[in-house]
Amino acid sequence: MAEALSPAAVEAAEARIRPHVRRTPGMMVEGAAFGLADRVHLKLELFQHTGSFKARGAFNNLLARAVPDVGVTAASGGNHGAAVAYAAACLGHRARIFVPTVSSQVKIARIRAYGADVVVAGDRYADAAVLSEAWARESGALMVHPYDSPYTIAGQGTVAREWEEDAVDGLDTVLIAAGGGGLVAGAALWFHGRTRVVAVEPQGSCALHAARRAGRPVDVETESIAVDSLGAKRVGELVHQIAEAFVDDVVLVPDSAIVEAQRRLWTKLRIAAEPGGATALAALLAGRWTPKPGERVGVLVCGGNVDLAALAALAS
Amino acid sequence: MAEALSPAAVEAAEARIRPHVRRTPGMMVEGAAFGLADRVHLKLELFQHTGSFKARGAFNNLLARAVPDVGVTAASGGNHGAAVAYAAACLGHRARIFVPTVSSQVKIARIRAYGADVVVAGDRYADAAVLSEAWARESGALMVHPYDSPYTIAGQGTVAREWEEDAVDGLDTVLIAAGGGGLVAGAALWFHGRTRVVAVEPQGSCALHAARRAGRPVDVETESIAVDSLGAKRVGELVHQIAEAFVDDVVLVPDSAIVEAQRRLWTKLRIAAEPGGATALAALLAGRWTPKPGERVGVLVCGGNVDLAALAALAS
Repeated sequence: MAEALSPAAVEAAEARIRPHVRRTPGMMVEGAAFGLADRVHLKLELFQHTGSFKARGAFNNLLARAVPDVGVTAASGGNHGAAVAYAAACLGHRARIFVPTVSSQVKIARIRAYGADVVVAGDRYADAAVLSEAWARESGALMVHPYDSPYTIAGQGTVAREWEEDAVDGLDTVLIAAGGGGLVAGAALWFHGRTRVVAVEPQGSCALHAARRAGRPVDVETESIAVDSLGAKRVGELVHQIAEAFVDDVVLVPDSAIVEAQRRLWTKLRIAAEPGGATALAALLAGRWTPKPGERVGVLVCGGNVDLAALAALAS
Repeated sequence: MAEALSPAAVEAAEARIRPHVRRTPGMMVEGAAFGLADRVHLKLELFQHTGSFKARGAFNNLLARAVPDVGVTAASGGNHGAAVAYAAACLGHRARIFVPTVSSQVKIARIRAYGADVVVAGDRYADAAVLSEAWARESGALMVHPYDSPYTIAGQGTVAREWEEDAVDGLDTVLIAAGGGGLVAGAALWFHGRTRVVAVEPQGSCALHAARRAGRPVDVETESIAVDSLGAKRVGELVHQIAEAFVDDVVLVPDSAIVEAQRRLWTKLRIAAEPGGATALAALLAGRWTPKPGERVGVLVCGGNVDLAALAALAS
């Protein structure tokens, strides 16, 4: 299936989703803000609809595939669920989102506010996913996978296309957080051959790194401050294949560096990022990626669905 | 003195301050986010150094004028004080900032963190200003006025130059918050003849509007959620002259609309703005500026020094 994915798939996704997604801004930031010698280009995708890049993949699925009258379904208590609910509402489709019982009331309310039928069931994400798949089989609803679908991957890849166009001084290396890996896979498809793509995962939740070591997707533990957005237990087969072909490196960061990245983004820039949204920057702060002199580095800030009270506590 | 101010003064300021300030991003946002028919171009100046546009005027003063060994001084418990302290530290100058006793400990600590000598004295801003002026006379320190100086005004005007360059689709009207009026005066100097400039003030703190009605600067009461950044009791003579010549309209907004603007910026965009930073947008939400069909409207989000816990409370 990986054969079908190419930069052309990203171009096609771009043409489809453009009327529905925001062109998010880029910003060049002096290195001093992050203790670096050279400046860094931030892509501020946290200002996307629903507060994360997930809107891109959601719209691409709903626009490229036939949506039956019964609508769409997804399993997620977080950003993917919100994005599918939002895209469905915008395009006039029904959405049934299966949310595990561990999800916070705030996130459940948010998905419901986008007009979705929310089913709270199953102890963990995997249980909700089983229920969502069963509902899709039974009802004919279109299932939207959070990462291991070519439509999801190509949709997320559009952020890279936009980023490259805006970064007029060029990008030698981009740092991108990985959970299930759909975002970094889509970006790597686009950037391959021109810009080095480095995936960044929390040490305690590193499904992509584990797959790379094992040579195939394997289950991992998921213990990190960023599990609400990067807590996939296993990457999919498609993500794994693309990552092996096109992702240049996978680096791991401790939670302490993720928190420090959130703190720096707020205190130096007044940008309120969620833990997963700050994870790529954490690789620079923790020295897990050390740019060479003059290396033009980009960092994707991919999500802003942070609890402001929690951010207030860690930034003070 | 107003004669010396022109677009060329803004150009000169730009050349001076460019190595020291951030080029902040612009972003086109669909009208639906704000209940409008047409899209709006946001200039995200809240991501400037020290969290507001004030860094521009501060750097222009310190770079264009001779700074004695004793350093610089300013009176402010807020954004101007932080900006002067920051610019002085960057350029290797001493700074003594006079802060009224009503200022919060958080703001005092922030100014001190930039390395300034902070003197907490005087009940209100006006008292701190008298002390700062006395110190300037006595010591020879360079006084940096928060708005009524040609260097301050030309420095703030650089945000307009940058904005116009980035808004490739053009701007028919820009909405800009006014406190002492240095920002809107500088922007109006730049935009005059090409783009309509509308100043936006809180109803309860509207020194520019009062000056326009009286035909001269007059004292006003200052009661608004945005007084920490827009609470000037009176605009200066220079600001008044420029505003009369170049600011097309002055509109007033209630505090409820300012709060709603903060809420929308957070819930729809994940942008955390301070009350003064959200005041320009409030004019659209409250219908105090109603764009004509197709009117290309820009909104300046000028400050992000918000208490995150307070924002959490109003956004939930």
